Amino acid sequence: MNFRSDNILGCPPAILDAIARVNDTPTHPYGHDPMTARLNPLFSEIFEHEAFVFPVSSGTAANGLSLAVVTPPWGVVFCHRLAHIVRDEWCSPEFFTGGARLLTVEGPAAKITPDQLDAQVRLTTHAGKPSTLSVTEATEAGTVYTREELHALVEVARQHRLHVQMDGARLANALVALGCSPADLSWRLGVDALSFGATKNGTLTAEAVVVFRKELADELAHRRKRAGQVSSKMRFFSAQLDAYLTDDLWLTNARAANDSARRLGEGLRAAGLQLAAPVEANLVFPRVPLPLRDRLRAQGFEFLDWPALGDDVVRLVCGFATPEAHVDALVAACRG
Amino acid sequence: MNFRSDNILGCPPAILDAIARVNDTPTHPYGHDPMTARLNPLFSEIFEHEAFVFPVSSGTAANGLSLAVVTPPWGVVFCHRLAHIVRDEWCSPEFFTGGARLLTVEGPAAKITPDQLDAQVRLTTHAGKPSTLSVTEATEAGTVYTREELHALVEVARQHRLHVQMDGARLANALVALGCSPADLSWRLGVDALSFGATKNGTLTAEAVVVFRKELADELAHRRKRAGQVSSKMRFFSAQLDAYLTDDLWLTNARAANDSARRLGEGLRAAGLQLAAPVEANLVFPRVPLPLRDRLRAQGFEFLDWPALGDDVVRLVCGFATPEAHVDALVAACRG
Amino acid sequence: MNFRSDNILGCPPAILDAIARVNDTPTHPYGHDPMTARLNPLFSEIFEHEAFVFPVSSGTAANGLSLAVVTPPWGVVFCHRLAHIVRDEWCSPEFFTGGARLLTVEGPAAKITPDQLDAQVRLTTHAGKPSTLSVTEATEAGTVYTREELHALVEVARQHRLHVQMDGARLANALVALGCSPADLSWRLGVDALSFGATKNGTLTAEAVVVFRKELADELAHRRKRAGQVSSKMRFFSAQLDAYLTDDLWLTNARAANDSARRLGEGLRAAGLQLAAPVEANLVFPRVPLPLRDRLRAQGFEFLDWPALGDDVVRLVCGFATPEAHVDALVAACRG
Amino acid sequence: MNFRSDNILGCPPAILDAIARVNDTPTHPYGHDPMTARLNPLFSEIFEHEAFVFPVSSGTAANGLSLAVVTPPWGVVFCHRLAHIVRDEWCSPEFFTGGARLLTVEGPAAKITPDQLDAQVRLTTHAGKPSTLSVTEATEAGTVYTREELHALVEVARQHRLHVQMDGARLANALVALGCSPADLSWRLGVDALSFGATKNGTLTAEAVVVFRKELADELAHRRKRAGQVSSKMRFFSAQLDAYLTDDLWLTNARAANDSARRLGEGLRAAGLQLAAPVEANLVFPRVPLPLRDRLRAQGFEFLDWPALGDDVVRLVCGFATPEAHVDALVAACRG
Repeated sequence: MNFRSDNILGCPPAILDAIARVNDTPTHPYGHDPMTARLNPLFSEIFEHEAFVFPVSSGTAANGLSLAVVTPPWGVVFCHRLAHIVRDEWCSPEFFTGGARLLTVEGPAAKITPDQLDAQVRLTTHAGKPSTLSVTEATEAGTVYTREELHALVEVARQHRLHVQMDGARLANALVALGCSPADLSWRLGVDALSFGATKNGTLTAEAVVVFRKELADELAHRRKRAGQVSSKMRFFSAQLDAYLTDDLWLTNARAANDSARRLGEGLRAAGLQLAAPVEANLVFPRVPLPLRDRLRAQGFEFLDWPALGDDVVRLVCGFATPEAHVDALVAACRG
Repeated sequence: MNFRSDNILGCPPAILDAIARVNDTPTHPYGHDPMTARLNPLFSEIFEHEAFVFPVSSGTAANGLSLAVVTPPWGVVFCHRLAHIVRDEWCSPEFFTGGARLLTVEGPAAKITPDQLDAQVRLTTHAGKPSTLSVTEATEAGTVYTREELHALVEVARQHRLHVQMDGARLANALVALGCSPADLSWRLGVDALSFGATKNGTLTAEAVVVFRKELADELAHRRKRAGQVSSKMRFFSAQLDAYLTDDLWLTNARAANDSARRLGEGLRAAGLQLAAPVEANLVFPRVPLPLRDRLRAQGFEFLDWPALGDDVVRLVCGFATPEAHVDALVAACRG
Repeated sequence: MNFRSDNILGCPPAILDAIARVNDTPTHPYGHDPMTARLNPLFSEIFEHEAFVFPVSSGTAANGLSLAVVTPPWGVVFCHRLAHIVRDEWCSPEFFTGGARLLTVEGPAAKITPDQLDAQVRLTTHAGKPSTLSVTEATEAGTVYTREELHALVEVARQHRLHVQMDGARLANALVALGCSPADLSWRLGVDALSFGATKNGTLTAEAVVVFRKELADELAHRRKRAGQVSSKMRFFSAQLDAYLTDDLWLTNARAANDSARRLGEGLRAAGLQLAAPVEANLVFPRVPLPLRDRLRAQGFEFLDWPALGDDVVRLVCGFATPEAHVDALVAACRG
Repeated sequence: MNFRSDNILGCPPAILDAIARVNDTPTHPYGHDPMTARLNPLFSEIFEHEAFVFPVSSGTAANGLSLAVVTPPWGVVFCHRLAHIVRDEWCSPEFFTGGARLLTVEGPAAKITPDQLDAQVRLTTHAGKPSTLSVTEATEAGTVYTREELHALVEVARQHRLHVQMDGARLANALVALGCSPADLSWRLGVDALSFGATKNGTLTAEAVVVFRKELADELAHRRKRAGQVSSKMRFFSAQLDAYLTDDLWLTNARAANDSARRLGEGLRAAGLQLAAPVEANLVFPRVPLPLRDRLRAQGFEFLDWPALGDDVVRLVCGFATPEAHVDALVAACRG
C-alpha cells in the first residue's frame, strides 16, 4: 500500500485511449499536428484568456522553462524554502535560466507571507536583480494559498517589479480545494508563467508550460526547442493533455485525491496522531513516532520521512486512484 | 501519402501494449521501478558489454546529454556539416554542454573522411580544446558508414585524443544495412557515448543515452536530472524501450523501412530520376525538377525540399510502416 | 574622510614602479613573458608548496573561477549567509560554474560553525550534489577564523567529500591577525582553490587564483581563457602581484590596515559605541544611532550602512593607507 | 626584433601618467568615481552620438559582452571564417552569450561579402535563430572594409533582422586607413555594439564595450557585473581610456603602426616577396619560403606562421612603437 508519491500511479484509461487514438493516423511531426493545434484553443477556453501551451516531458522542465522566460540569467527568484524548485530539481532552475539565483523566503505551512517576501527582496542588494516570485499552488506541505493570500503576495511582487511564476504541479488539487476557476488562480492574479502540472494527477509523460502573453510565448518557443523539449511526436504529449482536460478529468482526479487525503487526515487525527500541516490538498503530514513508523513499514505501507516539516513527520500522498481500502487500512494500522 | 519524416508514424502495437501493461501496477517513481531496472541488463546483453542506459524524452536531449558527458564547456566537437546536431537542434548542443563549439567537417554523402577530420583538428588552434568526434550513423544523407570507415575515423580521433559520440537516431537502420551487431558499431569501435535513436523507428516518446563506462554513467545521472529528463513516471519510457528491443522489433522495423527505401530508390531511378546520395538506409534523395515536384504535391504526396544536398533535391523518408502501395504510387507518379 | 571600502585607495608606489618597469621591454603576450613566469615559483616559495597562479582582473572573477574548478554545474556550494559570493557578485558564481547552487549556512560573526555546516549538508537532498565549502578569511564581518576553527570546518567538509574554496579577498589581513603562514591557512588546511585577494590590499587591477594541484591548474587554464581573463599584456597584472609579495609588502599593508581598525574600534568603544562584531581584521562595525550617523556624514565622513549585521550598524573600512588622523577624527566626532 | 603581436608593446608614457595621477586621491569604488564618469561624455563627443561605455579588462571579454547583449542564447552569429571570435577565444563567445552559435562566412581577404552573408543566413534553418552579424574592422588579415562595403553588408544584415556587432580590436587602424570618423564606422552604419579595442594600440589593461542605445546599456550593466568585469578600482581602467583618447593619442598610435606596416610591406615587395593580403592596417602577411623563415628567426626576428592565409604565409605585426630600424632591418634581411 503505497503512499510514497503522486507518481506511483499511472494514468486513467481515458489517457491511454487518447494515446492509442492518435497513433492511428500519420501526421506532421514536431507539434505541427491537429491534436497539438487543439491545445491553445482548449486551454484558452478553460483559462478564459488567450493561453499559449507548450507540452513538455517533465515537471522539472516545465518549471525550468517557465522560470527562464521571466528571469534573466542574473535574476533572483524568490521562492519558499520548501519549494520543489529549490529542494528537488538538482540545479535545474539554474540550468534552464542560464544561472539565475534562487533565494528562499520563510512562512508557515510552506506559504510565503507578503511581509517575508518584502523583507527578503529588500535585503537583496547585489546578489542579483530581483526578478521573479515563484509560488507553488498547492504547496509542498499540502496547503493551499487562498486567492486573497496569493493576491496579497502578488501585490508585493508587483511593487518590486517581480514577474510571477507558478509551480502548478498540484494546481488541480488547489482549484478543487478552493472552488476556484483556473483563471482565478492564474492570469487574473497576475501569474505570468505557469508550470501546469499533469503527471502527478493523471497523465503518463505530459506536462505543459502555459503563458498568457504573446511575447513570452515567442521566447518560450526558442527555449523549448533548445532544451530538447519539442518532441518529434508531440501529438502523444498533446493527446494526453487533451484527454486530461476533457470532461473535467483533471478536476475529477484531483477531487478524488483530495478526498482521500481528507479522509486519511481525519482518520489519523482520530487515531491520535498530530498533523504537521493542515490537509488542504492531497498530502498528509502526520507526526509518527519511530516505532509506529517501523511497524507500518513492516506491514507493507510505503511512505517517505519528511524531516523538512519536523523530525518525526512523514509524508503520505493520496492520488487520483488511491483505494479507499488502503486509506482505511493505514488509519487502522495507526490506531492499532 | 506522407514521406516527410520518420516521425509521421506512431508506434507498433507492441509499444502501446507495453505502456498499457506497465500502467497496471503502482510502483516507485523517478526510475526506481522494475521495468527501468531491466534496461541495463537488457542493453548490456544486446551490446555484449556492460551498458548504462538513460531513457530521455527526445533525440535532441539524447544528443545533448551524450555530447555533454564527453565534452567540456570549452571543448570543440567535430561533426559533419550536414549533421543533425549542427543543423537542426537550435543551439541545443551548446545548451547541454554549457557552451562547447561545433566545428564542421566535410566529406561526400554526409560522411566525414579521416583526412578531413585530421585537417580540421589541426586547424583548430585557439577556438577551443579539440574534444569530441560526433558521427551520425546512418547519416543525414541516408548513407551508412561501413565499420572500416568508422574504424579509420575513430583512429584519427584517438590520435587527437578526441572522445567519440554517436548520433544513432537511425542506428537500427545502419545495423540492418551493414549486418553488424550493436557492439560492432559502438564500443568495439570506440564509441564512448551513444544517442540511441528509437522514436524515428517505432517508440512514441522514448529515446535513450547509452554509455559503456561507469564514470560516464555517474556524470550522466547528474546531467540528466538537471536537464529535467528524469521522468517521474519513467517506467513508461522504459517500457517503450523494452518492447522496442524485445524480439528484435527495432531491427524488424528498420529492415522494413530500409526495404521500402530501397524499393523506392530503385523505382525512382528506373523512372529516370537521379539520386543525390546512394540509398543505404531509409532515406531517398532524388533530384526532382520543380514542375514534377509541384505535380506530386498536388497529388497529395508530402515531402521536404532538401537544398543541403542540391537545389533540386527532395528528401523522401520511409518508415517502419510505410505502405508499399504508397511507395509504388509515388514511383508511378514520377514515371507518369 | 573615507571609510567606505578597501577599494577607495589606489596602490603604494612600489606597485606603480613595477608597472612602469615592465613597460620598458617588448615581450611575449598572453602570459608567456618572464614576469609572469616568476609567479609560480614566487607563490610556491611563499606558500611552501607547489602553487599554480592565475592572474585575473577582479575578485569576482577570482572567486568565480576558483569555485568553478571545484564545483560541477549541478554542485552545491555551502557558504556563510554573509559571504561576498552570495551577497555581492550578481549571480557571478552561477555564471562561472555554469549553474551551481549556493546554499547559505549560519554562524555567529559571519563564521560558519561545523555543526551548522553538517546540518545544512544533511538537509540537502535533491537540491544538487554537495560539492564545495566556501570560506571567507577574513570574513565579511571583519572576523577571522582561527586555524583550529577552519580545521574543524574542513573536517566536516571532508566527511561529506566537499572541496574547499577560500575567498581570500582579505587573506593578508587574516594572516597578520593570526600570525600564520600562508601555508597554514591554505593547502595545509585542505584548501583546494584560493581566491587570492590583492586589490583590496594594494594592487591596482590584479587578483589571482591559486591552486595547489596540477589537475586543477590544467582545468583552470581552460576556464580562465574562456572567461576572457587571459590578458594580452598579462605582464602588467603579474608585475603588480610580484611587487605586492616582494619584501612582504602585502603583509605590511595588511598590518597597517588592521592596526588602524583596532585603533578605530578601541576608540569607538571608548567613545561609548557598541560593536556588532569583534575587530579582528580591517573592518569595524559599530552600532551608530541614526542622528549620530547623520552628523558624521555631515562632517564629511563616508561609510556604508550595514543592515546585514543589525539595523543600526555601519561598516568602517580601514586600508593600508588610512591616515591615523582620519581615524582619530572619526573617534573624536563620535565622542563629541 | 619582435613582429609577433600588437601586444608585445606596453603603453606610451601618457597612459602611465594617467594611472599615476588617478592614484593620488581616494575615491568611490566600482566605477562610481569622477574619472569613470568622464567616459560617457568623452566617447559621446568622439562618436558624435550618445555613447555608453563599459571598461573591461580584455578584448575577449569585450567581444563576449558585446555579442551577448545583441544575441540570445539560441542565436546564430555570422562572422568571417578568420574572425578572432571564432578562431582565438576558446569558446568565450558561447560562454558570454550563454550558448549562441557562431557560423562562419567566406569572403576574400577576411572580408565577408554581402552575397555570402545572404546565402549563409538562408541556409540556416534550424541551427538557431539568425541574430547577429559580427564584423571585424580592421580584419584579421590586415585589410579594411570600406564604408561602402560595410554599408552593403549591414543592409543584408538588416534584411534578415540581424543585429550588428563590431570587433574593433584594430578600429583605430581602420579609422586612420580610411580617414573616417568613429561615427562613420559605427552607429551611422548601424553598429549596435562595439568592442572598442585599445590594448593592441596602447593601453595596458583597458578595453571597453560601447553601445549606442540605452536599453543595451541597461542590460550590459548586468552582464558586465556578472562577468566579474566591474573592477573595484575601475578608475585605473577609465584613466587609461581617457588618456588613450585625449589629444588623439589613439589615432596617432594607429597611424604610426599603419605607416610602419606600409613601409614594411613595400620593402618586402621590393625585396621580391609576395603578400597574401593587401597592407591596409598594421599587419603584413608575406609569403616567406621556409629557409628564409628559418634564417630570419636565426637572426632574431620574431613572428608567427599564419597558415590560415596560406602554408607559406607569416604574420608581421607593427605597433605604435615599432622602431623604423627594425622594419628596415627585416626588409634588409629578406633582401639579403
